[in-house]
Amino acid sequence: MLAEPHFNRHPGFWKMLTVAVCMALLGCLQAQEHQGHVSIILLGATGDLAKKYLWQGLFQLYLDEAGKGHSFSFHGSALTTTEKGQEFMAKVLESLSCPKDVALPRCAELKDQFQQLSQYRHLKTSEDYLALNKDIEARVQREGLWEAGRIFYFSVPPFAYADIARNINSSCRPGPGAWLRVVLEKPFGHDLLSAQQLATELGSFFQEEEMYRVDHYLGKQAVAQILPFRDQNRKFLDGLWNRHHVERVEIIMKETVDAEGRTSFYEKYGVIRDILQNHLTEILTLVAMELPHNVSSWEAVLLHKLQAFQALRGLQKGSAVLGQYQAYSKQVRRELQKPDSFHSLTPTFAGILAHMDNLRWEGVPFILMSGKALDERVGYVRILFKNRAYCAQSEKHWVTDQSQCLPCQIIFYIGHGELGSPAVLVSRNLFRPSLPSKSWKEVEGQPGLRLFGRPLSDYYVYSPVREQDAYSILISHIFHRRKGSFITTENLLASWVFWTPLLDSLVHEVPRIYPGGAENGHLLDFEFSGNQLSFSQQQLEQLVPGPGSVPKPSDFQVLRAKYRESPLISAWPEELIAKLANDIEATAVQAVRRFGKFHLALSGGSSPIDLFQQLAMGHYGFPWAHTHLWLVDERCVPLWDPESNFQGLQAHLLQHVRVPYYNIHPMPVHLHQRLCAEEDQGAQTYAEEISALVTNSSFDLVLLGMGPDGHTASLFPQSPTGLDGEQLVVLTKSPFRPYDRMSLSLPLINRARKVAVLVMGRMKREITTLVSRVGYEPKKWPISGVLPASGQLVWYMDYEAFLG
Amino acid sequence: MLAEPHFNRHPGFWKMLTVAVCMALLGCLQAQEHQGHVSIILLGATGDLAKKYLWQGLFQLYLDEAGKGHSFSFHGSALTTTEKGQEFMAKVLESLSCPKDVALPRCAELKDQFQQLSQYRHLKTSEDYLALNKDIEARVQREGLWEAGRIFYFSVPPFAYADIARNINSSCRPGPGAWLRVVLEKPFGHDLLSAQQLATELGSFFQEEEMYRVDHYLGKQAVAQILPFRDQNRKFLDGLWNRHHVERVEIIMKETVDAEGRTSFYEKYGVIRDILQNHLTEILTLVAMELPHNVSSWEAVLLHKLQAFQALRGLQKGSAVLGQYQAYSKQVRRELQKPDSFHSLTPTFAGILAHMDNLRWEGVPFILMSGKALDERVGYVRILFKNRAYCAQSEKHWVTDQSQCLPCQIIFYIGHGELGSPAVLVSRNLFRPSLPSKSWKEVEGQPGLRLFGRPLSDYYVYSPVREQDAYSILISHIFHRRKGSFITTENLLASWVFWTPLLDSLVHEVPRIYPGGAENGHLLDFEFSGNQLSFSQQQLEQLVPGPGSVPKPSDFQVLRAKYRESPLISAWPEELIAKLANDIEATAVQAVRRFGKFHLALSGGSSPIDLFQQLAMGHYGFPWAHTHLWLVDERCVPLWDPESNFQGLQAHLLQHVRVPYYNIHPMPVHLHQRLCAEEDQGAQTYAEEISALVTNSSFDLVLLGMGPDGHTASLFPQSPTGLDGEQLVVLTKSPFRPYDRMSLSLPLINRARKVAVLVMGRMKREITTLVSRVGYEPKKWPISGVLPASGQLVWYMDYEAFLG
Repeated sequence: MLAEPHFNRHPGFWKMLTVAVCMALLGCLQAQEHQGHVSIILLGATGDLAKKYLWQGLFQLYLDEAGKGHSFSFHGSALTTTEKGQEFMAKVLESLSCPKDVALPRCAELKDQFQQLSQYRHLKTSEDYLALNKDIEARVQREGLWEAGRIFYFSVPPFAYADIARNINSSCRPGPGAWLRVVLEKPFGHDLLSAQQLATELGSFFQEEEMYRVDHYLGKQAVAQILPFRDQNRKFLDGLWNRHHVERVEIIMKETVDAEGRTSFYEKYGVIRDILQNHLTEILTLVAMELPHNVSSWEAVLLHKLQAFQALRGLQKGSAVLGQYQAYSKQVRRELQKPDSFHSLTPTFAGILAHMDNLRWEGVPFILMSGKALDERVGYVRILFKNRAYCAQSEKHWVTDQSQCLPCQIIFYIGHGELGSPAVLVSRNLFRPSLPSKSWKEVEGQPGLRLFGRPLSDYYVYSPVREQDAYSILISHIFHRRKGSFITTENLLASWVFWTPLLDSLVHEVPRIYPGGAENGHLLDFEFSGNQLSFSQQQLEQLVPGPGSVPKPSDFQVLRAKYRESPLISAWPEELIAKLANDIEATAVQAVRRFGKFHLALSGGSSPIDLFQQLAMGHYGFPWAHTHLWLVDERCVPLWDPESNFQGLQAHLLQHVRVPYYNIHPMPVHLHQRLCAEEDQGAQTYAEEISALVTNSSFDLVLLGMGPDGHTASLFPQSPTGLDGEQLVVLTKSPFRPYDRMSLSLPLINRARKVAVLVMGRMKREITTLVSRVGYEPKKWPISGVLPASGQLVWYMDYEAFLG
Repeated sequence: MLAEPHFNRHPGFWKMLTVAVCMALLGCLQAQEHQGHVSIILLGATGDLAKKYLWQGLFQLYLDEAGKGHSFSFHGSALTTTEKGQEFMAKVLESLSCPKDVALPRCAELKDQFQQLSQYRHLKTSEDYLALNKDIEARVQREGLWEAGRIFYFSVPPFAYADIARNINSSCRPGPGAWLRVVLEKPFGHDLLSAQQLATELGSFFQEEEMYRVDHYLGKQAVAQILPFRDQNRKFLDGLWNRHHVERVEIIMKETVDAEGRTSFYEKYGVIRDILQNHLTEILTLVAMELPHNVSSWEAVLLHKLQAFQALRGLQKGSAVLGQYQAYSKQVRRELQKPDSFHSLTPTFAGILAHMDNLRWEGVPFILMSGKALDERVGYVRILFKNRAYCAQSEKHWVTDQSQCLPCQIIFYIGHGELGSPAVLVSRNLFRPSLPSKSWKEVEGQPGLRLFGRPLSDYYVYSPVREQDAYSILISHIFHRRKGSFITTENLLASWVFWTPLLDSLVHEVPRIYPGGAENGHLLDFEFSGNQLSFSQQQLEQLVPGPGSVPKPSDFQVLRAKYRESPLISAWPEELIAKLANDIEATAVQAVRRFGKFHLALSGGSSPIDLFQQLAMGHYGFPWAHTHLWLVDERCVPLWDPESNFQGLQAHLLQHVRVPYYNIHPMPVHLHQRLCAEEDQGAQTYAEEISALVTNSSFDLVLLGMGPDGHTASLFPQSPTGLDGEQLVVLTKSPFRPYDRMSLSLPLINRARKVAVLVMGRMKREITTLVSRVGYEPKKWPISGVLPASGQLVWYMDYEAFLG
């Protein structure tokens, strides 16, 4: 709807009007000026990326848009001298190609037009930028145009960003009413800190709105189809796209090439930064995000993507397996002039197990994998659905598109591999998908071809009507302001928040060496168990010597000895915890057999957490239904406080086992909404509860720790309570926050049938040595007062605590 | 070690001595008498089972044992006249066969010996039994033997049991020092009640020790190998045999035959009683039980089996899919002279989804399936392991015994099917199993044969060295007192406890009609989701008209109306509970979204139990981690008392979901070891807790019930407390035991954001009608005082309560 005309209109108005009139007439296809002039400046115009993709992308943009009302000028720029740059550009422009459906003479004509609009200029100093600005303005004015906007495409190394950004911001912004878009290419930093710095720096020159960070995977046709596919097939996917139905998600990018010739870059980045942190993570968010109501709203897409990042569970060292192809270190030595002794730790292969902590995806493994020198080049996203069916007929009677016992999967096939082109595959026993028929067509499978465990004929297969390069697509999206295909600052930082802790934890990790290609065999296969990833095969031999040999826990036996005249069991932490857990289970089984129940009093702190996990995960026979759990001591904080000992018990043990509610006996430190108030008589209440339920107030097993100051339970050297006397439960003071504590008393502890003291870690070495020498001095060292009257005392110490 | 001889030795002593001396000499292999004489009485000796299996089993026993020191006599008996019986027996004995490795002349000799020891006798009256007893005693004496024991094998219909048992007990028990074993054949009852009656009756005649209930599946070689296999492969299986690694367990028994000629039996039993309740359930316990330390201790095996039964989660109607082959009803009409209008509801096909509620198996689906008129005859137990691997190479490079991406499974192949013989199959990518080499041998696969999705060459395949009939094996076990292969009374009743509620709930269920054989196609495939099983395919047409039309719950819509001017939701019980559970979940999700938590106050009683189960099993999206659970009322009993409302909550909800300990708020009815003492101020404490944690003391949802006297919560017409005033929580008196109660007050209930009143069952009809007419009269009808000040009140009534 045109507004009522008056005099001070935008300079473009009359053009627009002209065109509107012109468009109404047929044959008026060359109209170019009514929507304003767009200048596109390709920085780094002589680089590899520009040569391979960007010029072609810009030409494609020209082909697509030139007839639709904008006028264009294309400026290649670089540090190269004008003459050489012009020469280079001429060559590149000559090699541009038209789509298949454009006849040769027409193509030549179009290329000629494009060349006319393109020029090279040397761009280095602020004067150069000022000059560029002037030239654009002059041209616009000269040709009677109005300026719509400018696109600066940064195809330059990141160290050059700041300088260029400053120059653009100070000298090259278009006038009011026209837009500025700057296009940035990865790497966007090396970790969270550097990404933040870079983002802050760019943020001082550009609005978020103006920045387009490219991840070219988002331009790949199969990837770009993920959200539209989810949207157009909602009717089938709404019930399926969740943890109840999805068995796993695989996001894979395999390469056959290695890093030769690129090691100076690769050695700094490695496969996780090169592929996983960006490409595969972006894909993950597209698969996992809550689907916006309107997928064409890029604001909604970006918001949902950010929420997906927030649901990602933090990665740990154990979430990754790393590999390095055998020739890599040699290539690095050669290319970077390193000595013969140099071995790189940079991974060229990584498998990652990610989880989303939300209701939709809880428990579903997301497997991200990429590597160089693998057996094939292929990229795909595979959603494998759970098999929840039993098929009553013999499998020879199964009909492909009816049997729910055959695998159900959806694959976004990014490219290469045995298919050789992008595709979307949907198992025929799932549903017939709907794809936009203009751009995707159903294709017949090649006979004999098998993919993902099934013949291709088991799938509905769709391919793009016209294969398009990712950069062409993204350049078009930049032009059309489709920001959903780009990385916002928030998303970028969220991704680094996710990846940086893992990267930090892997700095010294030795990757598994692999020969490369088909010879890799099953060497790089990996498996997950809970949150942990590990290679499926034991490594039979190191292909190159690893850097030193840290002894592993399993190399050692459990050591049996005496400590303070009681049995001492010593081992590496893993064995020690396993042994203690076994001993506790044996005690429990015996107690339940004899008395029908098992009273176990547990200490807080960090050492027991591993024990809790061990008991929770590995001890199926534990008689939890007959076990009463008591606390040895507690901090005077609410039970749900992260500092509460009970909270550790809750999170690491109770969550995983079935102890009846009324067999759980937290200390009543929180009564009448206050903490450990004398007048609430919590200690007395707990003592009464013990007396009432535990025969002779004699626990079957008390688990204690020992502090570096010789404290045990919450009985501290500085506090006189609880070391003797009649009281079973006492309020005490700790020298550390939170100061107020509740604790079983020494006399009560010493009534137990069995007391186990768990001491772990290097920090305990001194007190271990000291306490080995002292007698019964509970006031100085409360631990020395642990002497069960008729029960048994056993010390469990790891080698670090015991041998130092 | 022989004791010093003296005069009054057991009559067998001298024989034993003789044999001991004799055994010391070579060539003394026919020694038969030193371990005493065993009489075996086969009751129903002229029946089918006897003819097909039992006589052969007894002959095999004779072959195996005759040389080892016992002497035998075999008595066939039946109601048949002596002459006819003798004739029949002579025929059967003539047709007995020797093992392959016995030469023909030797076989004839052995058969002759066996025939000499066998005789038929008519056995009906108590005199007959007395005569039998006399004959045995006379023979023993005459031949200078001593009696070791007697085996009575009941191969007769169950209605004959009592009479025979009485006669044996009163007239045919062997003398002191000799044992009695009675062998019973199924059916062992028709449901829990009849099984109990039968067990009680038998128990009045025999010791548990004396009874051997046969499930001949336990004698099948592959089934009998389950425990030894688990034992001998502990090193591999210890880490695998649990929910972390097992994807599913399938226990399958498919038949091609139908029930023609047997419908008079079948019509009373159906497939669940015929196959699942006994054979498949026994197998399930062998797979699922905790492995005893010593698997050859039958006491331990039976104990662990019983524990496995106890861990089985109760089945619901939705845990089963039923089918009936198309010709069945016609066969029944013909064989049982039913009118043309008759349609049977007896299932001939059933799929069942079972779960074990213990740490080892939680969440692992156990699929039990059996049917007649299917496409193949085969029985197997299949343990499919989870695929937790990602294989980095293209699948064409996968090596069968190395790739963890190929299925990992262990199959106990019971027999028939494409293999045609019993076998144990272990995927080569799992481990090379160890089987007893005397009785099992590794075999090569038939080329081209595929089983369970993989070529046979993918498995280690073991078959018995010598195929043995189940009855021969079991008869040997009876003789050797290996009670682990038989069903104890406890186990039998545990199995009926498990199956009876399901059978009851399925009485009116219409089975899906299937054509039979390969034509079944995918009609009987089924799928599970949570606890629910359903056929994979919608049934397109009824193949024959269904038997009458009992209206099913799903035929009815949920009815929406008004009751006491508030919304009323009415439906059949199942839909009502489902609707209420959905509404609660929606309220919870909304509350958590808005406030970060959800405060839910629940009533006790029986109606909520179905609700709890529904919430526990079917609502994965429920935000339990953010839900606080409160009690509406409580009986003044300890929390672990079966009468405690909390105990119902614990057993039916808390056991199954993950609510943090400190979000659970039982009423403090049990303080300082006494119940609801005024001076312990439990009500005040609970009120304080509510005030502290629940914003404005306004619960997000309060679930109430309504008593036939108009009471709600524990607010009774006869008791004035809690109907108004300031108190949030009150102590009240019930007219029913236990009299003392604690309850939320009406004013507190009316502060809730939402109140749901659940009213179910015919018993509530009168009060429902009455209350619909009264105004606000809480002193007469406390329920009439439920009027949330600013919240919403919704009534949920089933049709029986509402429409009567």
